[in-house]
Amino acid sequence: MKIGIYPGSFDPVTAGHFDIIKRAKGLFDLLIVAVLKNSSKHSLFTIEERVTMLRDLTIGMEHVKIDSFEGLLIDFARENRAGYIVRGLRSMTDFEFEMQFARGNNRLAPELETIFFVADIKQSFVSSSIVKEIAMHGGDITEFVPDSVIDKIYTKYGKDVTR
Amino acid sequence: MKIGIYPGSFDPVTAGHFDIIKRAKGLFDLLIVAVLKNSSKHSLFTIEERVTMLRDLTIGMEHVKIDSFEGLLIDFARENRAGYIVRGLRSMTDFEFEMQFARGNNRLAPELETIFFVADIKQSFVSSSIVKEIAMHGGDITEFVPDSVIDKIYTKYGKDVTR
Amino acid sequence: MKIGIYPGSFDPVTAGHFDIIKRAKGLFDLLIVAVLKNSSKHSLFTIEERVTMLRDLTIGMEHVKIDSFEGLLIDFARENRAGYIVRGLRSMTDFEFEMQFARGNNRLAPELETIFFVADIKQSFVSSSIVKEIAMHGGDITEFVPDSVIDKIYTKYGKDVTR
Amino acid sequence: MKIGIYPGSFDPVTAGHFDIIKRAKGLFDLLIVAVLKNSSKHSLFTIEERVTMLRDLTIGMEHVKIDSFEGLLIDFARENRAGYIVRGLRSMTDFEFEMQFARGNNRLAPELETIFFVADIKQSFVSSSIVKEIAMHGGDITEFVPDSVIDKIYTKYGKDVTR
Amino acid sequence: MKIGIYPGSFDPVTAGHFDIIKRAKGLFDLLIVAVLKNSSKHSLFTIEERVTMLRDLTIGMEHVKIDSFEGLLIDFARENRAGYIVRGLRSMTDFEFEMQFARGNNRLAPELETIFFVADIKQSFVSSSIVKEIAMHGGDITEFVPDSVIDKIYTKYGKDVTR
Amino acid sequence: MKIGIYPGSFDPVTAGHFDIIKRAKGLFDLLIVAVLKNSSKHSLFTIEERVTMLRDLTIGMEHVKIDSFEGLLIDFARENRAGYIVRGLRSMTDFEFEMQFARGNNRLAPELETIFFVADIKQSFVSSSIVKEIAMHGGDITEFVPDSVIDKIYTKYGKDVTR
Repeated sequence: MKIGIYPGSFDPVTAGHFDIIKRAKGLFDLLIVAVLKNSSKHSLFTIEERVTMLRDLTIGMEHVKIDSFEGLLIDFARENRAGYIVRGLRSMTDFEFEMQFARGNNRLAPELETIFFVADIKQSFVSSSIVKEIAMHGGDITEFVPDSVIDKIYTKYGKDVTR
Repeated sequence: MKIGIYPGSFDPVTAGHFDIIKRAKGLFDLLIVAVLKNSSKHSLFTIEERVTMLRDLTIGMEHVKIDSFEGLLIDFARENRAGYIVRGLRSMTDFEFEMQFARGNNRLAPELETIFFVADIKQSFVSSSIVKEIAMHGGDITEFVPDSVIDKIYTKYGKDVTR
Repeated sequence: MKIGIYPGSFDPVTAGHFDIIKRAKGLFDLLIVAVLKNSSKHSLFTIEERVTMLRDLTIGMEHVKIDSFEGLLIDFARENRAGYIVRGLRSMTDFEFEMQFARGNNRLAPELETIFFVADIKQSFVSSSIVKEIAMHGGDITEFVPDSVIDKIYTKYGKDVTR
Repeated sequence: MKIGIYPGSFDPVTAGHFDIIKRAKGLFDLLIVAVLKNSSKHSLFTIEERVTMLRDLTIGMEHVKIDSFEGLLIDFARENRAGYIVRGLRSMTDFEFEMQFARGNNRLAPELETIFFVADIKQSFVSSSIVKEIAMHGGDITEFVPDSVIDKIYTKYGKDVTR
Repeated sequence: MKIGIYPGSFDPVTAGHFDIIKRAKGLFDLLIVAVLKNSSKHSLFTIEERVTMLRDLTIGMEHVKIDSFEGLLIDFARENRAGYIVRGLRSMTDFEFEMQFARGNNRLAPELETIFFVADIKQSFVSSSIVKEIAMHGGDITEFVPDSVIDKIYTKYGKDVTR
Repeated sequence: MKIGIYPGSFDPVTAGHFDIIKRAKGLFDLLIVAVLKNSSKHSLFTIEERVTMLRDLTIGMEHVKIDSFEGLLIDFARENRAGYIVRGLRSMTDFEFEMQFARGNNRLAPELETIFFVADIKQSFVSSSIVKEIAMHGGDITEFVPDSVIDKIYTKYGKDVTR
């Protein structure tokens, strides 16, 4: 059974993240989208909200499971008998960081393979941080996040979601 | 009427910033140098100090106006009927960030064009942060910032400006 | 009078080149699109064909002129009293090359300013070489080059243009 | 049935290529290693030699097939009903090229997904060109190519393979 | 007398740092490994702990001296009559930062030369931050730091060092 | 005895090359500037001309020796009992190539260390190729190459050197 893990903060899920989920799931018997509990980073959504957000988005997608984890990714992968880590690449800066991350994980857990998808070009400049920056100022984020997530973000910033 | 905006934190203005202002102003009927009010970043100079600093520097430069803004750059650009954003490029890292920023703005405001100038090679390693780091320790910043700004920076750090 | 030059090989003109022409022309009183005569590079189209191709594309665009040149760009710029060079940036590799080119020109001709536009994201992976590679094998280039250029390319490769 | 294609020149196969084959094959029901017939590039080994070299290496690997192709990769992929292209990433320069290649292919064939593996760190500076450069001068290539390939390369350069 | 300085935070010393010390020391009559007192950064080890850590590691290495400094590196270099700064390069991101740092220092102190060593490829993805991240979660850091440092790090995180 | 080798094509020597020679020589008891005989690359100057050019430039520099070599750099280094390779870094693209080159050499000859100097910022966009391109068209190369080399280059291109 081929199990892949797509880890991330997903704070919030962007259209780019969702695109990777849709494209990666076909490669695996089970794709676990795993929300990282990162206590040191100030977040907009709680872990529970992010898990719910992802569950709502992936309803009806067989072989996709949403979970959360804390600690080392390789430990979470081993517990779930996953053989693959899935990551999206948007830019050069992503690439360097991801390369180091993949190599570190491979050294700690040689049986764990990291594979990369190239981010959809229309989403290549979109990140969770940029979405938050735009939404905070009442800008238009409709093309950058999945539909079901839009209002949740505006609400967090006290913006009128009926705009 | 061609209006360009050169946005930035300018905390403080560097010789590199000043160089871009001098080179970019010829392209426009009006160049607005716009200081970003970024509440989340700890700053050395207040917005008012930075606006004054830039006004002093650009006295006598026709068609150059100093202003400040908060919120999204595209909103400020629309209010000012500006068609162009001006940015300087120093390095690869700049480039990736700026490319994403330009593409994000273009998606939100397709009528808004971002154009880049290559930073003067002698200033290509100078940033506001590096200037502050050097000045904090009493190092020599005379070649990195416009003359009128030098003492203001040393004073902030309690350094003797008669050195 | 603000005169800009957009130099290139244009062998052939791509949708990305055409996009830069349309976006850059508004900044200048005259934009000269200048085809470089590069004897050392094997080309698909002759200089004359490329000039004609560009003229056909820019019919009706006021303030846009098509020309060709050989030798140094700075000499051509001086002869035409141009103050600006226009270049498009697609990628990091472009960036390094362009940065060196801009700095070299600026050292040889300090009065000459190079300004950059970010390539349209949908065209960011398209180059004249890639278009030729695809067309040579009968692939679909309709989204990568202006309509009027499509058949001319297929014809060069002996491909049936009625496909 | 999940079919992946790992395309390349393989002139010659390096230890890095072989490593990608071994790591990628587990993801697919069939992995086709496809040697590109590139008439314009001067090659050391013929297409037939390269196919044989790869067949010898992958004897006993179920679900791995060696083939060759000319023309566009997307056409070869469609003929073979492959849904995935496999590529290895060694460096930043690789990354930019591969990103453009993946995006170009995705635009021409949206059903075709490109996935990347990070090259084994010990092989990250090894390419077919470097191997040839070293072998040509009689240097030691034993760690850079699979064992069965070593003598074939030295023989091409007229080097004594009993060294 | 050729004096070199290898500055850094060393919080903690990694196997990569130690490798640079061993390789760089042969070039100089005296190599000063200099721990930067950076009050603004939250650190795991105190300056004194880091100095001790480095002293323990370099016992018996003639011509290597451990020291600490605050303020500008160029001032510390001048006080020690050092003519060279030594730095390790792991990645592209390192490179840009280091290039700017080297050029800034060279402008402030033209007599001071910065020379770079390429990080050992097996350590190229290891940084003090990554080591701390792994150790914090009880992961295996034995290959990433010198032996004498391992337990000190686990102890800081309250991990059982007898694992 | 510390022996360093500074290898290159030097076709022609640029001001950047000369700068590296002057800065690197202080680190070694002997610095060998080694001209690579690369039969596959079309060159402007013969090996002999390049060796002479470098000898003229370094007259009076003790501990600097000019030589040429063909084959692998590591073989030449071993014959000369050199422990260090010296290289200059101008840009990101340089960096990737040089990193791979340094790591390849280190794998083949672990006792051989490669150290890098950052190119003088004023020369960072200058390469032998750019110098040739400018000179070929009669452009001004006086700031890009050492004085004694200027006329030699113009003469090769049949340009009037009395300009």
